[in-house]
Amino acid sequence: VVGDPTTPVHAVAPLDRAGPGDLSFFSGAKYAARFAASRAGVTLVSPDLADHPGPAVRIVVERPADAMLAVLPALYRPPERVSGVDPTARIGRGVQLAPDVTIDAYAVIGAGAQIGARAWIGSHCVIGPGVILGDDVRLHPHVTLCSGAQLGHRVAVHSGARLGNDGFGYIFREGRHTKIPHVGRCLIGDDVEIGANTAIDRGSVDDTVVGAGTKIDNLVHIAHNVHIGRLCLVMAQVGIAGSVRVEDGAILAGQVGVAGHVVIGARATLAGQAGVFGNVPAGETWSGYPARPHREAIRAHAAMFKLPSIIRSLKRLVEAEDRARADAAPDAAAAAPDHRPARTGTP
Amino acid sequence: VVGDPTTPVHAVAPLDRAGPGDLSFFSGAKYAARFAASRAGVTLVSPDLADHPGPAVRIVVERPADAMLAVLPALYRPPERVSGVDPTARIGRGVQLAPDVTIDAYAVIGAGAQIGARAWIGSHCVIGPGVILGDDVRLHPHVTLCSGAQLGHRVAVHSGARLGNDGFGYIFREGRHTKIPHVGRCLIGDDVEIGANTAIDRGSVDDTVVGAGTKIDNLVHIAHNVHIGRLCLVMAQVGIAGSVRVEDGAILAGQVGVAGHVVIGARATLAGQAGVFGNVPAGETWSGYPARPHREAIRAHAAMFKLPSIIRSLKRLVEAEDRARADAAPDAAAAAPDHRPARTGTP
Amino acid sequence: VVGDPTTPVHAVAPLDRAGPGDLSFFSGAKYAARFAASRAGVTLVSPDLADHPGPAVRIVVERPADAMLAVLPALYRPPERVSGVDPTARIGRGVQLAPDVTIDAYAVIGAGAQIGARAWIGSHCVIGPGVILGDDVRLHPHVTLCSGAQLGHRVAVHSGARLGNDGFGYIFREGRHTKIPHVGRCLIGDDVEIGANTAIDRGSVDDTVVGAGTKIDNLVHIAHNVHIGRLCLVMAQVGIAGSVRVEDGAILAGQVGVAGHVVIGARATLAGQAGVFGNVPAGETWSGYPARPHREAIRAHAAMFKLPSIIRSLKRLVEAEDRARADAAPDAAAAAPDHRPARTGTP
Repeated sequence: VVGDPTTPVHAVAPLDRAGPGDLSFFSGAKYAARFAASRAGVTLVSPDLADHPGPAVRIVVERPADAMLAVLPALYRPPERVSGVDPTARIGRGVQLAPDVTIDAYAVIGAGAQIGARAWIGSHCVIGPGVILGDDVRLHPHVTLCSGAQLGHRVAVHSGARLGNDGFGYIFREGRHTKIPHVGRCLIGDDVEIGANTAIDRGSVDDTVVGAGTKIDNLVHIAHNVHIGRLCLVMAQVGIAGSVRVEDGAILAGQVGVAGHVVIGARATLAGQAGVFGNVPAGETWSGYPARPHREAIRAHAAMFKLPSIIRSLKRLVEAEDRARADAAPDAAAAAPDHRPARTGTP
Repeated sequence: VVGDPTTPVHAVAPLDRAGPGDLSFFSGAKYAARFAASRAGVTLVSPDLADHPGPAVRIVVERPADAMLAVLPALYRPPERVSGVDPTARIGRGVQLAPDVTIDAYAVIGAGAQIGARAWIGSHCVIGPGVILGDDVRLHPHVTLCSGAQLGHRVAVHSGARLGNDGFGYIFREGRHTKIPHVGRCLIGDDVEIGANTAIDRGSVDDTVVGAGTKIDNLVHIAHNVHIGRLCLVMAQVGIAGSVRVEDGAILAGQVGVAGHVVIGARATLAGQAGVFGNVPAGETWSGYPARPHREAIRAHAAMFKLPSIIRSLKRLVEAEDRARADAAPDAAAAAPDHRPARTGTP
Repeated sequence: VVGDPTTPVHAVAPLDRAGPGDLSFFSGAKYAARFAASRAGVTLVSPDLADHPGPAVRIVVERPADAMLAVLPALYRPPERVSGVDPTARIGRGVQLAPDVTIDAYAVIGAGAQIGARAWIGSHCVIGPGVILGDDVRLHPHVTLCSGAQLGHRVAVHSGARLGNDGFGYIFREGRHTKIPHVGRCLIGDDVEIGANTAIDRGSVDDTVVGAGTKIDNLVHIAHNVHIGRLCLVMAQVGIAGSVRVEDGAILAGQVGVAGHVVIGARATLAGQAGVFGNVPAGETWSGYPARPHREAIRAHAAMFKLPSIIRSLKRLVEAEDRARADAAPDAAAAAPDHRPARTGTP
């Protein structure tokens, strides 16, 4: 630490917006001018930049950006919540509101829904009849929870996410796709976070389940009857087809697609854009289309990109071979209808 | 049938939530405890599980889960609709409401829109000026229908779907992307169902069209001027670029992408994540990137994954060949600048 | 021009819906019947169709559809905006409304937000505390702008887009994914257009930035700390992971995925579904998975699809070789455990 180690900070900000009460960070020489001009109370600085002119109080750390992220949860002031039900909120018959909830403007809550303590329902959320929310749930604006949705404690759902929609299920009979009604539930465990505009369907008869502590990014699709375990990470635009089982601690990177009924083992990792059509064993990393173990996929793709030059070499080899035959025994070669090498005729 | 074949049921539920008036199903030994404890009035049971202890009235069928889905439409009680216009709904000038419609809280309907008989407009839906809805349309909460949208009878649109948005069209002139206004329509045929958070753009001058009986899943993108035929299935996260034509009965699996102006023939199937850059003939199944006939694609991918070992074998072959030349005629080999096999020099 | 060149038109429409005041176009013989029956005031017609019977006033041009798009911006009448704040709109404390804004029904604007002149906030939009909008901004219905969002002048945001959401950032500690709070901004430059149901996250400490004149399509995901330059085109369902830098004028086609921290150079083009895991140099076109320069990728994929037949040829070659050895020196061949060609044993 350089400067007064007792300097108090109570928030974080980038160099150009930081004031005396803010912690900031300086991690690249290209930001030297911003650092010089910064009013930040305390700055995290990497060793190679420690002598640049700038704010007096600095903490020298190897990776200031990472260090910043690590201290953020302690310094962050979450938006203030004021408890109360907005007069424009529509509360259906038999809705149970626990103490100290916040329900913002134009929220609509269907008959018989149960809302846990300190839940914060954002503006314009629509909660279907009979939906159940645990304590400290946070619904950002414009969330839809259809009938059959049940959320545990401390679940956060970002704007535009849709939970408990009918799944995509039809039977083709008499010349048309007849809809299979959906009566299963959409069960979301404690401490789950769900990104903006993500859609999670309810089960058909069975339930769709997301385990406790799992985090889901924006624009993800999770189909009916999918079971996702605890502490998984499901990144943006992943699509998971019906009845897939994702076990605890698995990581699905962006745009991964998983075909119906597949099992993704515990702590498995699927690399970005992987197309998964079969089960993935626990702990393994798979990638590519169709997805294979990552090392195998990397080697296969590398080989594929080398393939055009290999084919050229091969052609040269074959042509050379042909010339060899021709030189060695032209008549025999001409007489060999089955393309056996000409020299087979030479004793 | 085991037990009283006249036992009445009027709903469906999984074993653990079923009561005496419910039909349930028992399809795996791992659910034996739930079956034993179930209060279900009637249970579908597979032949191998028919003797397990549990509810008295059971129907033995080969695949109870499938059988369940098949009878669901008959037993399902859809959510009750109460006709009437919520006092908070905003009905624009000249809107035509057919008899017996339901318009929920905070819905906004623009001037001159026409709403068919028994339509159910969910909370917070926004319907643009001049939009036309047929009879028995169901809009779930938070749907946006922009001007130019026209929906047939019995269309269902799930939460957060956006129909009739401006397409993505620009002309680059004078150093900027100049927007092409969109004046075409977005025409949705009878009995179409559209998933949560799906976006279907209006046409530029021509129309975007989805044919009768086609079903579209969540988070699908359909660009301007696309024509989709009747009875197609378009699964989650599919993206269809401008002016594509998808003919009747085609099936597009999850995350498929189709490039602009391509034609997908009638009853063609595109496998999950296929990237389609050219026309697909009627009735064929294509897959992979760039998409090819499925058998060809499977063989190519299988070969790709075998490629690293093939390359290794090939190298061994070539090295052996080289050694052979060296053994056979070392001097000639050394003198052969063009890598023609050494033995071509041997008479 | 055929007919009266002073015929006035003030709108555009397809042949079957055009009236005497409309410009339309006739670009294919299959539309001849519609052309014959059309009431269009003026029609753009391709040279080969110029003699078909139909509306009297026609302008003969090479590509009528393109010509139509080119004149559309001049003829298009945008929807009429009526300034005023709807009585149901909720305006928070300290909100600054510039003159002549339009705020539609049920919009909610948080404390301290600033709305520029002539901005049009659609029905049901939710604008967080402190958000800043420039002049002539157009928010279509159901847009969410979270705290930290700042939009320049003339920005258009389509229905259901979510700007300034928390990014997907967690640190795994003590057996759980601990959320990294997000305090960075989401800065959208002048003249940006953003498609329906797109999600753009705010920065963690740094900002997420979209440069002036860039156009973004439907269902796109842009993660925290991404910087996108000016005049880029980002097509539907593209996913851009955290801290990616996309430089000016780059084009990302539909369903492209870009891995974290990658740099896409100025004016680079990424073809549809490309999976980009490394930096792309300025001006280059890349495609495929993992993305490579387009020519290289095309050759590799073409080779991959030829691979099965190559492998078959190769097998025939090796078998022939084996037979050759057997014919030439069966004993030596049998004695050669290392598969060196039999003839190496022949003097």
